[in-house]
Amino acid sequence: MADAPQPRNVAQKLIAEHLVSGEMTPGEEISLRIDQTLTQDATGTLVMQELEALKLDRARTEVSVQYVDHNLLQADEKNAEDHEFLRTASQRYGLWFSKAGNGVSHPTHMQRFGIPGKTLVGSDSHTPAAGSLGMLAIGVGGLEVALAITGEPLYLRMPEIWGVEVTGELPPWCSAKDVILEMLRRHSVKGGLGRIIEYHGPGLANLTAMDRHVIANMGAELGATTSVFPADDAVLEFLRVEDREGDFQELLADEGATYDVEEHIDLSEIEPLIAKPSAPDNVVPVREVAGEPVSQVVLGSSANPGLRDFAIAAAMVAGRQIDSSVSFDVNPTSREILTDLTNMGATAELVIAGARIHQSGCMGCIGMGQAPAVGRNSLRTFPRNFPGRSGTKEDSVWLCSPETAAASALTGKITDPREWAKDVGLDYPALDLPARAAVNTAMLVAPPEKEEALKIEPVRGKNISALPDFPALPDKLEAPVMLKVGDNVSTDEISPAGAQALPFRSNVPKLAEFTFTRVDETYPERAAKTAGKEGHIIVGGDNYGQGSSREHAAITPRYLGLRAVIAQSFARIHWQNLANFGIVPLEFVNPEDYEQIDADDVIVIDGVRDALQSGKELTVHNATKGVDIPVRHRMSTRQVEGVVAGGLIPSLAFKDAPPHA
Amino acid sequence: MADAPQPRNVAQKLIAEHLVSGEMTPGEEISLRIDQTLTQDATGTLVMQELEALKLDRARTEVSVQYVDHNLLQADEKNAEDHEFLRTASQRYGLWFSKAGNGVSHPTHMQRFGIPGKTLVGSDSHTPAAGSLGMLAIGVGGLEVALAITGEPLYLRMPEIWGVEVTGELPPWCSAKDVILEMLRRHSVKGGLGRIIEYHGPGLANLTAMDRHVIANMGAELGATTSVFPADDAVLEFLRVEDREGDFQELLADEGATYDVEEHIDLSEIEPLIAKPSAPDNVVPVREVAGEPVSQVVLGSSANPGLRDFAIAAAMVAGRQIDSSVSFDVNPTSREILTDLTNMGATAELVIAGARIHQSGCMGCIGMGQAPAVGRNSLRTFPRNFPGRSGTKEDSVWLCSPETAAASALTGKITDPREWAKDVGLDYPALDLPARAAVNTAMLVAPPEKEEALKIEPVRGKNISALPDFPALPDKLEAPVMLKVGDNVSTDEISPAGAQALPFRSNVPKLAEFTFTRVDETYPERAAKTAGKEGHIIVGGDNYGQGSSREHAAITPRYLGLRAVIAQSFARIHWQNLANFGIVPLEFVNPEDYEQIDADDVIVIDGVRDALQSGKELTVHNATKGVDIPVRHRMSTRQVEGVVAGGLIPSLAFKDAPPHA
Repeated sequence: MADAPQPRNVAQKLIAEHLVSGEMTPGEEISLRIDQTLTQDATGTLVMQELEALKLDRARTEVSVQYVDHNLLQADEKNAEDHEFLRTASQRYGLWFSKAGNGVSHPTHMQRFGIPGKTLVGSDSHTPAAGSLGMLAIGVGGLEVALAITGEPLYLRMPEIWGVEVTGELPPWCSAKDVILEMLRRHSVKGGLGRIIEYHGPGLANLTAMDRHVIANMGAELGATTSVFPADDAVLEFLRVEDREGDFQELLADEGATYDVEEHIDLSEIEPLIAKPSAPDNVVPVREVAGEPVSQVVLGSSANPGLRDFAIAAAMVAGRQIDSSVSFDVNPTSREILTDLTNMGATAELVIAGARIHQSGCMGCIGMGQAPAVGRNSLRTFPRNFPGRSGTKEDSVWLCSPETAAASALTGKITDPREWAKDVGLDYPALDLPARAAVNTAMLVAPPEKEEALKIEPVRGKNISALPDFPALPDKLEAPVMLKVGDNVSTDEISPAGAQALPFRSNVPKLAEFTFTRVDETYPERAAKTAGKEGHIIVGGDNYGQGSSREHAAITPRYLGLRAVIAQSFARIHWQNLANFGIVPLEFVNPEDYEQIDADDVIVIDGVRDALQSGKELTVHNATKGVDIPVRHRMSTRQVEGVVAGGLIPSLAFKDAPPHA
Repeated sequence: MADAPQPRNVAQKLIAEHLVSGEMTPGEEISLRIDQTLTQDATGTLVMQELEALKLDRARTEVSVQYVDHNLLQADEKNAEDHEFLRTASQRYGLWFSKAGNGVSHPTHMQRFGIPGKTLVGSDSHTPAAGSLGMLAIGVGGLEVALAITGEPLYLRMPEIWGVEVTGELPPWCSAKDVILEMLRRHSVKGGLGRIIEYHGPGLANLTAMDRHVIANMGAELGATTSVFPADDAVLEFLRVEDREGDFQELLADEGATYDVEEHIDLSEIEPLIAKPSAPDNVVPVREVAGEPVSQVVLGSSANPGLRDFAIAAAMVAGRQIDSSVSFDVNPTSREILTDLTNMGATAELVIAGARIHQSGCMGCIGMGQAPAVGRNSLRTFPRNFPGRSGTKEDSVWLCSPETAAASALTGKITDPREWAKDVGLDYPALDLPARAAVNTAMLVAPPEKEEALKIEPVRGKNISALPDFPALPDKLEAPVMLKVGDNVSTDEISPAGAQALPFRSNVPKLAEFTFTRVDETYPERAAKTAGKEGHIIVGGDNYGQGSSREHAAITPRYLGLRAVIAQSFARIHWQNLANFGIVPLEFVNPEDYEQIDADDVIVIDGVRDALQSGKELTVHNATKGVDIPVRHRMSTRQVEGVVAGGLIPSLAFKDAPPHA
């Protein structure tokens, strides 16, 4: 007789159901089958170029959706041309396309495509929001999404499962945003590293699916791999309102399921919280900072996207006027939510009270407009307030609930909504939300049948490059050290963001001109001379490539001829990106050997292919100084195969795909 | 017994009623008392700096309003800081302040402040829109507005009055935009130069005040000084809807009034028209270009601002879907119009059909976002389609009515709305507009009482300079020629616009760094060395300073030390701007003497103050070449007085004003 099966929690069930390889032991490499993907326009153009380089015929996921929600301002032709490229490339590769104005990816995906029990990867760090429906939803780099679209599994280290038991009910004037702010207050932005957060317990009955979206979305700020909730009655109710009850399947933790880490939140003890400038974990009770003057209040973003988040604010400002010194900006999440809000009369209430109603999209949350004045307090229902993210270098951005935001917009100073309600004599409004949402899929363009799709040529504006071809690794590298840098060099220094560089994110050759210019302005020109020839090498210190996950920080130096980085140590994601794009990441066996190489030295690595593939010891020869230096790598066999082929794309491209124009 | 008074037309009555000096003979200089002023944020910051430099205590007009409608995108802190400066400076100087999001200046001014029989100047070329109410409304440079605010009259040459008799009634699917497009088709963008267009006749009974706004607004594209309509029953009805019937006063042409030029339009012969790329007078019937693919359609701007313009489009798209290849952008004119539109159910209809609803303001009309893809057709209800104005260099922008725009958005190609209506079987919708508009003045911040106002210190972000002090003209100029340029140098070459320079329009020292850089990159640095010392001189060819009226093209070189320009001839507005800011504009008596001066020559003009004031002949001495060159000026006594004082501001500044911090 077999043993009774081990009781499993929701996260374990999701993983077990999709496990392709590996053991479900925290820290072990596993791979997972991916059912759905999500891309947005700021990362999607590169994903489409990757699909093209992979010679994909047609998406092999159950559902893949390309959203346009980030670059909506269109200061010149580049955004509109990116949107047109994404629309036509989606048609070509069999993806759904969500037009500009349709809505923010995460809530829209939840409303129209999310299905309990499915896996989702997205090239956006807030992808975990779909955990609200009982999905396993993970934010990853663009190439991982592209590979998932081609049917490849996702590789990751099995995370710990962090069980958060929820009890009680939120007091009036508190909402889901205050719950995730409480988590950030307790655990900081590093608290979730290497973990999946699973919420469970009787208090969940008091949180709607959209409340859970708020919490799962901003779980990204805890550094968690993702957050998951069970698929229970609240999820069924959400799908019913969205006219998709047929997509419901229950997914609950087994009786007796355990967690690697345990935690408890009593909702009844939550009070209005606010993250002070300039970190999401810089959380204090609103009452402690009440009275600070406010010059801007913004509602919206994937962190407070639900109809209720706008409706509660509308109910508070109805018949009142925003303070004359405040800009009150409202970013409706989607066309659907704006329609419902309008039909409820809430849009008119917001406008009459003094709101600036903006187009549906991320807007100020990703620094696309709405930048505040220097040093003036801006209260936002957004997920992040990193310094300068608003577009203003010396900004002063606070994160809070819609309730706190609306009260503060009315008074012109940071205000605890409980105090405001007492002053104006208002009970916490019961919202009369529609029983059926204004479902409208007309701005979601379905992919054509495969035969039609294969005939489509994506429309490519002048600014949209193809992904460059990268040659395989030669067996002997002999190349100069183009740059020697110190510790903690970030991907921001390798491939800067900002208004000058960002418009070129679809254009690797052009973006490459910005590579390392914050460190050494001459790098792009010097490096480019080695591209297509002997290439070049970079020497780094400790924690090379920390910060943002942008894969451009690997692609653009690779485009300029980078073949290997020799460093004391690497940041995890950038290390993976280097390998993905065929750059050999090598570590000094003896960290002090960092001193044995200088800029312009010529480095020889003989038999590098063979050594990587056979597991032999690796030595680099400094031909200029005449010294041999022992190095090592930490790549898996799978990664070595990619590096040797010149990158994952050449190693995985479909050889039998239809020819491309 | 006195002669019977000469019968007068509306324009003559408005002028006669406000005449301060001069004879009402076309071509003669007259000056007019100004009742109202209007400024917007792109020009207003400089106007506020001018008020400060003029040491104004408090606005002396009946009404002055500062609108924020242009720079609403806020990509960094500069826009928000400009808005805050404008808000607090408005408080200081006694202006009304219209907050960002309240609406586009021209229709908002018409709705809330326009009064028949009054004069209005505005630092925006579409100011003539208020002519729809029987006002004399003229677009001028910022300093002219600042002077009007201080109570100075406006100087101009008496225009010819061009009478356009209107008869008949518009056919279904045609509207006011088609009328002004017909005027542009007939007369081109130069047809109105030196003229006031006065519409009269029985057909006016079929045009509402807001229809007339469309026509008067885009009269700017004909080059007219302004357009006027009578204040008749249609104006009374408009004011009644806006809850201001008490502000009505009838203003009609006298029986037997005549016009300097006569013209006739039969409304019943109008058909749907469209201006092709890239000039507002490149007009053809829509049917001639039907079938061209469309990738963007935009509703809004001061050229089609009325509730009906959005409501007719909503009625057309209701229950239908925008073509999947089209971005359908809707820019509500104002909070009031968005409220009415929402209460009517039209906002929901637009959103459901696929519209991107943007914040209330000018948006794409002044290149603030909404830039289309290169070469893709964008249909807009805007007034202008000059090449590149959209933000896209190689754009393809067409101008049309809301009817043509909506039909084309639905089909994805340029479509005559009459043909579309036939295809779908729709009669021209009768719109049920509200009998009372959703009047709401809470986003119009009134100025405080004078005593309070004088204590207010305008809040000045880092990017907002004070207007520099310019010293008086010395009696002897002895200065080098910093630059010698050829014919037709434009103000775009003197002070460039564009994404790099425009954010500094509130910051003369910073903007000065861009001066003449398209001609000679070294100019700003070389010139700056002469500022505050001997100064410098520029030598120009024919038509020096053509193009845009921007006063920055005089202020920034003046800031860098420019004291005189010697040219073969000047463009009119720049010539006036040079004099306004204390730069002596001199013309060669013998054009061939242009050859007698080279860059770096040292020029001496001895006794220049005396010669200008006494009317003596003027000679400049080229000390380097040892030659004397006869020159002349064409300034009036009033202008000479300004130049000698160092500019109009020092000559007019209130000496007894309260001290400034």
